[in-house]
Amino acid sequence: MALIVKKFGGSSVGTTEKILNVAKRIIAEKQPGDQIVMVVSAMGDTTDELIELAKQINPNPYQYTREMDMLLTTGEQVSISLLTMAFRTLGQKAISLTGQMVGMKTNSVHTKGKILDIKPARVKKELDKGNIVVVAGFQGVDEHGDPVTLGRGGSDTSAVALAGALKADSCEIYTDVDGIYSADPRLIPDARKMQEITYDEMLEMARLGAGVMQPRSVEMGKYFNIPIHVRSTFTNTPGTMIREAYTMEEKDFLIRGVAHDKNVAKIAVLGVPNNPGIAKEIFSALADKNIAVDMIVQSIRNIEKNVTDMVFTTTLDDLPETKKTVDAVAEKLHAVAVLIEEDVAKVSIVGAGMLGNPGIAARMFGALADANVNIDAISTSEISISCLIKGSELSEAANAIHKEFFPDK
Amino acid sequence: MALIVKKFGGSSVGTTEKILNVAKRIIAEKQPGDQIVMVVSAMGDTTDELIELAKQINPNPYQYTREMDMLLTTGEQVSISLLTMAFRTLGQKAISLTGQMVGMKTNSVHTKGKILDIKPARVKKELDKGNIVVVAGFQGVDEHGDPVTLGRGGSDTSAVALAGALKADSCEIYTDVDGIYSADPRLIPDARKMQEITYDEMLEMARLGAGVMQPRSVEMGKYFNIPIHVRSTFTNTPGTMIREAYTMEEKDFLIRGVAHDKNVAKIAVLGVPNNPGIAKEIFSALADKNIAVDMIVQSIRNIEKNVTDMVFTTTLDDLPETKKTVDAVAEKLHAVAVLIEEDVAKVSIVGAGMLGNPGIAARMFGALADANVNIDAISTSEISISCLIKGSELSEAANAIHKEFFPDK
Repeated sequence: MALIVKKFGGSSVGTTEKILNVAKRIIAEKQPGDQIVMVVSAMGDTTDELIELAKQINPNPYQYTREMDMLLTTGEQVSISLLTMAFRTLGQKAISLTGQMVGMKTNSVHTKGKILDIKPARVKKELDKGNIVVVAGFQGVDEHGDPVTLGRGGSDTSAVALAGALKADSCEIYTDVDGIYSADPRLIPDARKMQEITYDEMLEMARLGAGVMQPRSVEMGKYFNIPIHVRSTFTNTPGTMIREAYTMEEKDFLIRGVAHDKNVAKIAVLGVPNNPGIAKEIFSALADKNIAVDMIVQSIRNIEKNVTDMVFTTTLDDLPETKKTVDAVAEKLHAVAVLIEEDVAKVSIVGAGMLGNPGIAARMFGALADANVNIDAISTSEISISCLIKGSELSEAANAIHKEFFPDK
Repeated sequence: MALIVKKFGGSSVGTTEKILNVAKRIIAEKQPGDQIVMVVSAMGDTTDELIELAKQINPNPYQYTREMDMLLTTGEQVSISLLTMAFRTLGQKAISLTGQMVGMKTNSVHTKGKILDIKPARVKKELDKGNIVVVAGFQGVDEHGDPVTLGRGGSDTSAVALAGALKADSCEIYTDVDGIYSADPRLIPDARKMQEITYDEMLEMARLGAGVMQPRSVEMGKYFNIPIHVRSTFTNTPGTMIREAYTMEEKDFLIRGVAHDKNVAKIAVLGVPNNPGIAKEIFSALADKNIAVDMIVQSIRNIEKNVTDMVFTTTLDDLPETKKTVDAVAEKLHAVAVLIEEDVAKVSIVGAGMLGNPGIAARMFGALADANVNIDAISTSEISISCLIKGSELSEAANAIHKEFFPDK
């Protein structure tokens, strides 16, 4: 007997036929005594259609964030009622519950809410009555009783947080890929599916560009220590288990995966006086504009003239605002020039195993050198190493690194 | 300065364009200091579309009444968020509130809920902040926190009940007709719009077949003594005020209107023994099947044989079940025959003025006689008289009666 939270995304419940199929599958897989909580997103394009309606009222409807939440939370309410009817049509007791009913308390930051607390008494009561409990993902309620959506990746976060609050045995995230891979299979055909990965590694992978899981839900899993099983909606094969520590032979892997990110731009502020406070000048101006900066490299340009170059990266989305801000600061600092490069990419390796293994970085750099890929900048964290390279060389670079750490069996 | 509750039905908010038009109108008509509560239904065909989705899951989705309520309450939630955005787009402060947020407490009879109590503290707070408060009609919440819809005419009922709980100055029901008429203008071209009508008269009109207002909301108005202004969505002309007593010259009218009902079937149980308990036998069998019986006439067929005829009416919808039930009872009672007639109609006059005016009934019967219409059965209440006639003679009969009591000016 286990208590399992299962999350199905919008494409898995995109039509009434798919909803019936999800219900059939869950009933077929249910073991006697299992308690099942389903967390579901809005059906397929529902959210986009609702946003479209709002845009007919005002081209910029997100200025009314509370009303957007009032509008968008209906999407999940429709899918939970239909999925519950599907269960009952198939003879399975079930009940639908909104975010409010499952006690999902959030702050009042509409459209980007954060979960403050979960009081899932109603969920437990309904499970004890023998129901499959079908919960609206992506939504909670604030102290005023107003609906609040959780923003990007919100349904995953709902599911993992609810699993945590219920002390569930696991949380299963059903998605259109069948697990977490050692790299993006679209870029690296040799990428292999992992059986397990730790929360920290998954977080680092997500931070460095791997797209399957939003970091928020992984953090939530880590916080509650709930194993997260990422698996396919379309097959029954096991996916990847995200958990605190490995239970199997996979701990022998030094690194867990190769991540990459093309949404990167490089900004170089050349020839600024090498005085204390220069970095603060540049980066506090960017922070004021809410621009996130990633890799930062400061190098000495000319010791005698005491000038330095400051190089950093940001996302392509933030580039126009970054350029405006940096140009202003550079003028003030009497910098020689500001150079922008958009054809750059970041390739990273992630793995708790690199702690205390100083040879890892050298192997990564060696693989890049052998592939004739030049490294533009390097940054490291406890469990990752990232290299900034030319965007056009990304595929070559990533494949070379992956081959180094995941040689053919 | 007045506190006014205004209710707009689904066709008034059927498109985003119509929603913007409603917002413009309300802002244009708003007097400084007015406090406005809007109660709205789901947009146009939304409810039908949601029911269609549910039918794709199960052809008979209404067996899952709680889930239907979970599904259908989203319709109003969409329209209140869009209407609120429309107000704000036009520069008017506004906020949307669900049935739960306005404190609309109901029993747990899903899809046919009854309002138990309203605690509209949130509405008052939002009004005091200068908001137009946009409320989801047709819905409340039960003691478990589950959404409950109020059934047919539910949005009107929400609006009037909320007006009562807020001690509003009036409740305006915007509809596709411009008021209450002395008869159905489609049947009686001479029908005239009434300036005023009492709750009791309106209730009697509705009970006898006049379709504009559901009796529930009128009862609610009477209970709270809230004047209900029935008026057109499309024009600014005043409609009809439903209230406790007349304030104007209209009190001189003896009768208020002519109602009619074609959804009637006549059942005659002929030749049953005229013993005590016969009526109980027939009508308790029908009550067990939840069949409502309207006009009942018992007449002596043959004194010597001590047998009687029992004639009554029911709705056409209930006729198949009625026939089955009555046939069984008739056999048990050794009745001579059961006759069914479907080509019947009921025409009624309504008016508090007929109290203490014994000539009214005679004038009605006289008008029918002059029109050569035969009366099949008669029933009376304190403020109404109804005649059962041939369905094919309804138009003639109704026009003749209307002309008698509303002569050309």
